[in-house]
Amino acid sequence: MSSKEEIESAINAKGEQIREIKTAKPPTMKDDLAPLIAELLALKVSYKAVTGEDFGGPPPAAKPPKVKKAPEPVKEREGPSKKELNKLKAKEVKEAAKAAAAAAAEAAGLTPKNAPVVMGDADIGDASLYCDVPLIQSQIMTERVFVDVDDLRPQMQGQEVWLRARVHTSRPVGKGCFMVLRKGLATVQCVFFQGSSIPKAMIKYGNSISMESVVDVLATVTIPDSPIKSCSVSSLELSVKEIHVVSRAQDLPFTLEDAGRSEEDHIASGMPVVLQDTCLNFRHVDLRTPANQAIFRIQSGVCTLFREFLLKKKFIEIHSPKLIAGASEGGANVFNLEYFGKPACLAQSPQLYKQIACACSGLDRVFEVAPVFRAENSNTHRHLCEFMGLDFEMTIVEHYYEALDVMSGLFTYIFDGIGDRFNHELKVISQQYPFEPLQYTRPTLRITFQEGIQMLHDAGITDAPFDDDISTPHEKALGKLVKEKYGTDFYIMDKYPLSVRPFYTMPCPENPNLSNSYDLFIRGEEIVSGAQRVHDVNLLIERANHWKIPLEGIQPYIDSFKHGALPHAGGGIGLERVVMLYLGLKNIRKTSMFPRDPSRLAP
Amino acid sequence: MSSKEEIESAINAKGEQIREIKTAKPPTMKDDLAPLIAELLALKVSYKAVTGEDFGGPPPAAKPPKVKKAPEPVKEREGPSKKELNKLKAKEVKEAAKAAAAAAAEAAGLTPKNAPVVMGDADIGDASLYCDVPLIQSQIMTERVFVDVDDLRPQMQGQEVWLRARVHTSRPVGKGCFMVLRKGLATVQCVFFQGSSIPKAMIKYGNSISMESVVDVLATVTIPDSPIKSCSVSSLELSVKEIHVVSRAQDLPFTLEDAGRSEEDHIASGMPVVLQDTCLNFRHVDLRTPANQAIFRIQSGVCTLFREFLLKKKFIEIHSPKLIAGASEGGANVFNLEYFGKPACLAQSPQLYKQIACACSGLDRVFEVAPVFRAENSNTHRHLCEFMGLDFEMTIVEHYYEALDVMSGLFTYIFDGIGDRFNHELKVISQQYPFEPLQYTRPTLRITFQEGIQMLHDAGITDAPFDDDISTPHEKALGKLVKEKYGTDFYIMDKYPLSVRPFYTMPCPENPNLSNSYDLFIRGEEIVSGAQRVHDVNLLIERANHWKIPLEGIQPYIDSFKHGALPHAGGGIGLERVVMLYLGLKNIRKTSMFPRDPSRLAP
Repeated sequence: MSSKEEIESAINAKGEQIREIKTAKPPTMKDDLAPLIAELLALKVSYKAVTGEDFGGPPPAAKPPKVKKAPEPVKEREGPSKKELNKLKAKEVKEAAKAAAAAAAEAAGLTPKNAPVVMGDADIGDASLYCDVPLIQSQIMTERVFVDVDDLRPQMQGQEVWLRARVHTSRPVGKGCFMVLRKGLATVQCVFFQGSSIPKAMIKYGNSISMESVVDVLATVTIPDSPIKSCSVSSLELSVKEIHVVSRAQDLPFTLEDAGRSEEDHIASGMPVVLQDTCLNFRHVDLRTPANQAIFRIQSGVCTLFREFLLKKKFIEIHSPKLIAGASEGGANVFNLEYFGKPACLAQSPQLYKQIACACSGLDRVFEVAPVFRAENSNTHRHLCEFMGLDFEMTIVEHYYEALDVMSGLFTYIFDGIGDRFNHELKVISQQYPFEPLQYTRPTLRITFQEGIQMLHDAGITDAPFDDDISTPHEKALGKLVKEKYGTDFYIMDKYPLSVRPFYTMPCPENPNLSNSYDLFIRGEEIVSGAQRVHDVNLLIERANHWKIPLEGIQPYIDSFKHGALPHAGGGIGLERVVMLYLGLKNIRKTSMFPRDPSRLAP
Repeated sequence: MSSKEEIESAINAKGEQIREIKTAKPPTMKDDLAPLIAELLALKVSYKAVTGEDFGGPPPAAKPPKVKKAPEPVKEREGPSKKELNKLKAKEVKEAAKAAAAAAAEAAGLTPKNAPVVMGDADIGDASLYCDVPLIQSQIMTERVFVDVDDLRPQMQGQEVWLRARVHTSRPVGKGCFMVLRKGLATVQCVFFQGSSIPKAMIKYGNSISMESVVDVLATVTIPDSPIKSCSVSSLELSVKEIHVVSRAQDLPFTLEDAGRSEEDHIASGMPVVLQDTCLNFRHVDLRTPANQAIFRIQSGVCTLFREFLLKKKFIEIHSPKLIAGASEGGANVFNLEYFGKPACLAQSPQLYKQIACACSGLDRVFEVAPVFRAENSNTHRHLCEFMGLDFEMTIVEHYYEALDVMSGLFTYIFDGIGDRFNHELKVISQQYPFEPLQYTRPTLRITFQEGIQMLHDAGITDAPFDDDISTPHEKALGKLVKEKYGTDFYIMDKYPLSVRPFYTMPCPENPNLSNSYDLFIRGEEIVSGAQRVHDVNLLIERANHWKIPLEGIQPYIDSFKHGALPHAGGGIGLERVVMLYLGLKNIRKTSMFPRDPSRLAP
């Protein structure tokens, strides 16, 4: 049997034989069918060896997925798309799966290339139970419902479920395979042992799937004798009936176990941890660790909570341009570029625009969530060259305390919200990065700059100046003193020296050396900077002149205050810092999905 | 009386006299006090003439605002801030107000410079009723409650209210002043006439306030005989008792009336409209027109609705870097810059990163709202060089129709939400820019590209190619044909030729010349582009090679698909286009707060 025609005819005959048995539907169907299907597969391998192509004949009998008709457009109509839909037939897909199964079996060493199978029929069994999924190209929509690992419940005992997940771990045990599947933060144990419905080849196929590959599994939910402590879904396990690789992972740069190991565990066990730079170089793998999955859910949550609170307070969301003609806050540390032949730069903050929108344009209360760009050559644990600014600006009636009240309410809402909505995520993170829960008061503690510096002096740190900016080590020391005295990790420090704040900061009415400005701190590190701003155009010009800021660079900004401007105040929150410090993490790169620092521009 | 000491002593004596009368509290107090206060003011003017400084002596008697103690920090404590708080005394502020009143009276020609007043005492009356507010520098927090124009209700009849608002219009009527105040979209009429409690100088002060100035007004709510049709608050008006300028507007570049005039009204009345470029040059004034206030509320609403829907569907928000090493979608039309000595560019979309997050990093369903940058020299009504992308990307199980179902639900939610939440804003916009309400079907109509082109051919537009991209005029023509045939302004066109889509687009399984890609249209203009993406690393490399895209530029992207990747699809929505086309506006610059095009980089 060596000609194409002969093999085609044999394949078709074998297919017919299988269909006949299927139609009879005896209880032992699968066992009867297995050798026939193995023969069929062998024939197809021969076909490919002879013709160089996959066999495209009639489909095999093994249960085709139910085809759901692709959704119709809202109106009845004729045309090519209907024809297309008609083409989406299950048999084609199944056929492709078969061919892939044969190829996979071949690759797995089960069928020597260009030769009929050498394993026994029973060893191969129904290869459609353990073949690779053909490239998912939207050929078909079936009625298969996939269950998330997270949604598995003991009440499903005895039910058959489809899952698509990653192979978290896999190990051969005797004549079987133990596999942990993972989706997001959830893991579940899967088992299958060689037996009447599980051929030897399926075990081999399962054990050959590389870690982190994506698989589809059809399994029965069973209840184990004792909980599976190593999995997040511990009260049940899955008895695998089919397994199919959707996407096979090549060699990993590191294991998730190593990337997710806590420092404590590393020291205790001597097992490796992965360097942060290596993690970031392969961020797509690194992001899969439980802690990272949780960190970025919380990051998303902080943005949601920020907006929820402000929208309730009648703020509206704005979007200010990032491409600007002048430097937004003085000329240093900006990224320059050419804009259609004109010099331009990237906004270092939405500061000037949010002020214009708020105080000069009748929008009154505005917020923006957007990237800000700093060309600052700072290689520290808390600086990024691109980070997310959560900015807000609001008109005030009399006093910037009105804005501080909003700020206090906002952060209380965010901190409460993280605790309420991300309890599980917090636990997961603390397993890799143990941290003390954030202590905060209601309302937020306020101290003045002078009080803060005095506290340092009283504690023997007498080199902290009253009339200059506070250094990072002093901030940290103050954070500890405040925690001791007031029992809070979160507080506002008010009335900074005027000389250390931007030109648009409102001077303090009582003391011309101070300003109506404030920073907010978590665990002794700054997360917000804000102030009442100057809304009087003459004072604004005076302050810009004082700072020797060329007016022509900020003329549109200055001019915006000429036609009636409202008193206003606000602040800019660093998203990555809030998340880092809330979680007590030691490096801001851990809370930026694809961080940018002076030496990192990829991935 | 010409020495500083003499005048000081006289001022203090006059102040004492006023305080004594106030303490007695006779019913006619104000009338008794008026001449004394006028004398006091005159003395202060003399003081300034002699010393060159404002008088800083004891305060006058006129009712000081009730001082609310500034909020205490949560813990009791001692230190400088307490002292500061103590300094926030009403009298100082009131004193400053007095000095300002004198200066204002002087400026208004009521008191010849360097000379005692010439107007009669009764003409000046209690100048503290109509003086400028001293620069609001957070000196004080009173218990004054300010009411928004929008929150005024006829039930408040007889109540005294404080308002801070802009002077929308103002006109002298006999011995009185009619003024319309505006905040946001709300306007209210204010009136005051010369009388026992309103001196002549107050009318003069009121009538001298320039349009768009910000004022504080104390007024009694009254019910007019007939509704004030010219104001949004038509069922009441305000009888002014005090008026104070907070911020005086200089000459306006144009009036809001001209900037807010409809084309129809312009043609009918011959009254001017303001050119779009002029509006954009003075965007801070232009944004105050009713239509613009409404447009940017709706823009904010679209973002809110976008996120609400996707968060409910288990998406998480991500933030991808805008500073990248390679060009995100091929090398053309990117803004280049230098990143610490290395070449970099601005992301043209979050495309590659959202795919990595979704398909390769275990986040599964992600969205991002962020600026995208296109250095495209397109000077059209619908192109911007910086615009807001509302991007989403999700894993699919079998078919990209899963993503189109999400898209269909998403837009239905957004369109419904605009209608439900911004009914008033829609009316306001239609007054300046009349438009047909958007027609849309549930679920969203889907046609194929081939069907769309066929519709054009059937309508006699036979130069539309089946195998190339569809031109903008053809898109518009098709929009009309679809509206006629299916009764919808909003639809999805599916299965674009592969050759007109980016390299990462999944080819169509049935026809290698087509792709699993789609655009969404409103009123015949594209607002979304999306597709199923290639998740197989080998196919991805093959497609990149086909497009001759240098792999080294996108290596981190390619590598991300090597370690297991899930099938996925998504889309990118242009925020400004959605708002423009929903509202039937003719230019995208109307829906970008500070638009960027090849010739505009400011404000």
